[in-house]
Amino acid sequence: MAKEKRNAISPTRAENYPEWYQQVVKAAQLAENSAVRGCMVIKPWGYSLWENMQRALDKMFKDTGHTNAYFPLFIPVSYLQKEAEHVEGFAKECAVVTHSKLELNAEGKLVPASPLEEPLIVRPTSETIIGATYAKWVQSYRDLPILVNQWANVVRWEMRTRLFLRTAEFLWQEGHTAHATRAEAEEETAKMLGVYADFAQNYMAMPVICGKKTEGEKFPGAVDTYCIEAMMQDRKALQAGTSHFLGQNFAKASGIQFLAEDGKQQFAWTTSWGVSTRLIGGLIMTHSDDDGLILPPRLAPTQVVILPVIHSEAERAKIMEYCDLLKKQISEVKYCGAEVSVALDARDIRGGEKVWGWIKKGVPLRVEVGPRDIASDSLFVSTRFDGSKKSVPRGEFISTLPEMLSSIQDAMFARALKYRQDNTRIIDSKDEFYSFFTPKNEDNPEIHGGFAMTYFSGNPEVEEQLKKDLKVTVRCIPLEGGEPEGVCPFDGAKASRRAVFAKSY
Amino acid sequence: MAKEKRNAISPTRAENYPEWYQQVVKAAQLAENSAVRGCMVIKPWGYSLWENMQRALDKMFKDTGHTNAYFPLFIPVSYLQKEAEHVEGFAKECAVVTHSKLELNAEGKLVPASPLEEPLIVRPTSETIIGATYAKWVQSYRDLPILVNQWANVVRWEMRTRLFLRTAEFLWQEGHTAHATRAEAEEETAKMLGVYADFAQNYMAMPVICGKKTEGEKFPGAVDTYCIEAMMQDRKALQAGTSHFLGQNFAKASGIQFLAEDGKQQFAWTTSWGVSTRLIGGLIMTHSDDDGLILPPRLAPTQVVILPVIHSEAERAKIMEYCDLLKKQISEVKYCGAEVSVALDARDIRGGEKVWGWIKKGVPLRVEVGPRDIASDSLFVSTRFDGSKKSVPRGEFISTLPEMLSSIQDAMFARALKYRQDNTRIIDSKDEFYSFFTPKNEDNPEIHGGFAMTYFSGNPEVEEQLKKDLKVTVRCIPLEGGEPEGVCPFDGAKASRRAVFAKSY
Repeated sequence: MAKEKRNAISPTRAENYPEWYQQVVKAAQLAENSAVRGCMVIKPWGYSLWENMQRALDKMFKDTGHTNAYFPLFIPVSYLQKEAEHVEGFAKECAVVTHSKLELNAEGKLVPASPLEEPLIVRPTSETIIGATYAKWVQSYRDLPILVNQWANVVRWEMRTRLFLRTAEFLWQEGHTAHATRAEAEEETAKMLGVYADFAQNYMAMPVICGKKTEGEKFPGAVDTYCIEAMMQDRKALQAGTSHFLGQNFAKASGIQFLAEDGKQQFAWTTSWGVSTRLIGGLIMTHSDDDGLILPPRLAPTQVVILPVIHSEAERAKIMEYCDLLKKQISEVKYCGAEVSVALDARDIRGGEKVWGWIKKGVPLRVEVGPRDIASDSLFVSTRFDGSKKSVPRGEFISTLPEMLSSIQDAMFARALKYRQDNTRIIDSKDEFYSFFTPKNEDNPEIHGGFAMTYFSGNPEVEEQLKKDLKVTVRCIPLEGGEPEGVCPFDGAKASRRAVFAKSY
Repeated sequence: MAKEKRNAISPTRAENYPEWYQQVVKAAQLAENSAVRGCMVIKPWGYSLWENMQRALDKMFKDTGHTNAYFPLFIPVSYLQKEAEHVEGFAKECAVVTHSKLELNAEGKLVPASPLEEPLIVRPTSETIIGATYAKWVQSYRDLPILVNQWANVVRWEMRTRLFLRTAEFLWQEGHTAHATRAEAEEETAKMLGVYADFAQNYMAMPVICGKKTEGEKFPGAVDTYCIEAMMQDRKALQAGTSHFLGQNFAKASGIQFLAEDGKQQFAWTTSWGVSTRLIGGLIMTHSDDDGLILPPRLAPTQVVILPVIHSEAERAKIMEYCDLLKKQISEVKYCGAEVSVALDARDIRGGEKVWGWIKKGVPLRVEVGPRDIASDSLFVSTRFDGSKKSVPRGEFISTLPEMLSSIQDAMFARALKYRQDNTRIIDSKDEFYSFFTPKNEDNPEIHGGFAMTYFSGNPEVEEQLKKDLKVTVRCIPLEGGEPEGVCPFDGAKASRRAVFAKSY
């Protein structure tokens, strides 16, 4: 076993959570800031993770009848203006293209030239440009439904950015569908929320609450916004995906009309739904610890890494031969329908540095192979998730590998779920609510209560007050529940449901 | 068999080649123009084709040791300016972002607000922004090589656009590598050109000539540009992919330096290489005919379509049951390592319309199933590529399907290669050269000779003259060849090689 000089993330979560997050991202080589304000570089390890997320989600979208297409990056300003709430929501922070050329001025400096007749904005989301296209595609009820998704980059000129969680440019997918009936569009909205919850829980091992946004928190232009909300390890909520029922708002704004079976001209009913590279931020903050990233096996770009432990050149050939064979055997094992992804790290660097590199990158299983392991045909196996280490006969390792990966995946979900449950409280009094959200430790104001399940009547003034006093918002009204009617502790009004209140990203 | 009312593309290739191209794109539902000048909407059928291209190329890139990453959409103007030739090449046509907000003016019109300190351009290519990142990543020779690819959208504000061939926004991949030695970077440049040629010929069934660009035609900032050039059916050349040896130009501009093994500080050697959605234009123009698109089996989103022929409701259940089973059997057949992609078109529309829809979409094999076919357990099979039709026993169809698809793939390549050979001429006199490139038919000035293989000394004045007189350029100096030295017929200078001269896209 290589010597492991302790080399954890500094600061720890308890010391400074936001800075711990940045250091985990850095140590795992996931992403970094670029010279362009708010735009990140997604590094190979981070991008591989995104590719795995994309692959799984893309299959789920296709299995539910969707196809991919691609729409323009630019949106004419006049399009944005068609939907009043929408323009309100996005005009405040967008990249505006005004010229189509650069020219050298008298001082030899490149300056914008050839002004455009109408400025364009870089898409912050594509409802308007896609709506204009669908208006051309749809004539009759026979042209519906349209079930299309787009993988794309979008830009929102955010003032305060944080890698993955909030960046000016980010990668995402946006599904845009059009339907002949309200019921069908509502069903689609619910279905895609279900797909997101399935992905979050079964691939990311991240428990989520499915719910509906309040009027104040919904997507600009939507009738209803549904979301999945997850609890991070600072007990804040992360909105991890949204599915919008847009009613006929965008169909009317864009003119998506069709001749119905009854011969009448009608507006279509549309939906949109999206998840983004923000999910990577959620993955990091759900599972990682003070040693760095921890990846769930189903999304890890490398599921097993083999680390040859070579103390003398005389041993090298024999150890490498054993490791090459081992790599081949591992790569033939199937886990979740695909071959196990295995890397052999033969770099000539110090053992401790090597081990810590993989710990920080979050690879689920590390397998160290030295002369004594070979002598007993055993492997020294370390599990990233719980730090356990044990010697396992090679044959047993190969035959039980799928179960090992599965049990790590399950245990990660269970640990995250327990964390959320331990930090969720049913609260029925205003005092308790305020106390719950007051940081216990002055040195680390990030750490507070967690999720409060509290009756909410829908009063926007209550939302305003809580945001102002505590920076707490209604994350969602959970879809599951069914508790008896109660009373909102803030305004005394009757409320049919408890909402999830939390601080959030 | 469904009645097939003739419903071909109008105009034909011979009548008006450019318009034929637009109509093929439209009829196959590949793409359409959007409201944003020069930006296209890639429709689901076109995007599926792109996904198949991406999947094959991405695997080839990974098999040659590359990983994917993602870099910012925006490039500060000052970055572009670092490489003198580069800025010259791209500043003339680029989307310039100057503001980060829209505000309502006094007339209620949205106008740009919050001007940026430094304007940004939307990436036309990413050498400069990626170079700035690599400068941070590279310290020592141990950090090299960097072998990274990016799948992204790019924008070049082209004045005259044509779907897929030349659009303001397009999708592409751009590989960017950095190496410790010149030899290694040159090897990488050649290797990736080889990957492109392999992809073009073995997936797209599109024969290409691998060659080197002249000084005047190379990428702005490159030392050497290599390319693959294909002949379209109007005998023009299409540059289908490029691989650039950038020397130390961009490393010096961006400051990519490393401490070499000998302890000296050195600049890295870099390469870049890319193919884009333009390949789809090449695919269309290489294979399609006056009936529409023809897709090579290896890239077709649907390889086989089943068309039930139902004349009476009484037959429906039986025919659909047979077709469902057939679909299952076909989808279990393996071709090139993957399951055959099969669609069952049960739409309730006229048979002729249905058949012609699939003809125009270019699906390699159509299988019609009516009552008489079922009675004899046979299928009526039509091959898109050569229009052949025959009845085939079901069992034989299933067992020979991989060979049928392979032979179509091979025959498509052979037909395209023959077309190029038939329209390529070795020319050693100026008169013959001018006559070769003069349209034979006044009504259709697009149709001319084809490729001329002519000695070229490298004289840029010759290039200028030919461009002016004939719109003919040197497409490349082929890498293969080895003919004895000759004389350039234009300036009488000695020339070591024949170049490929052609009109081009």
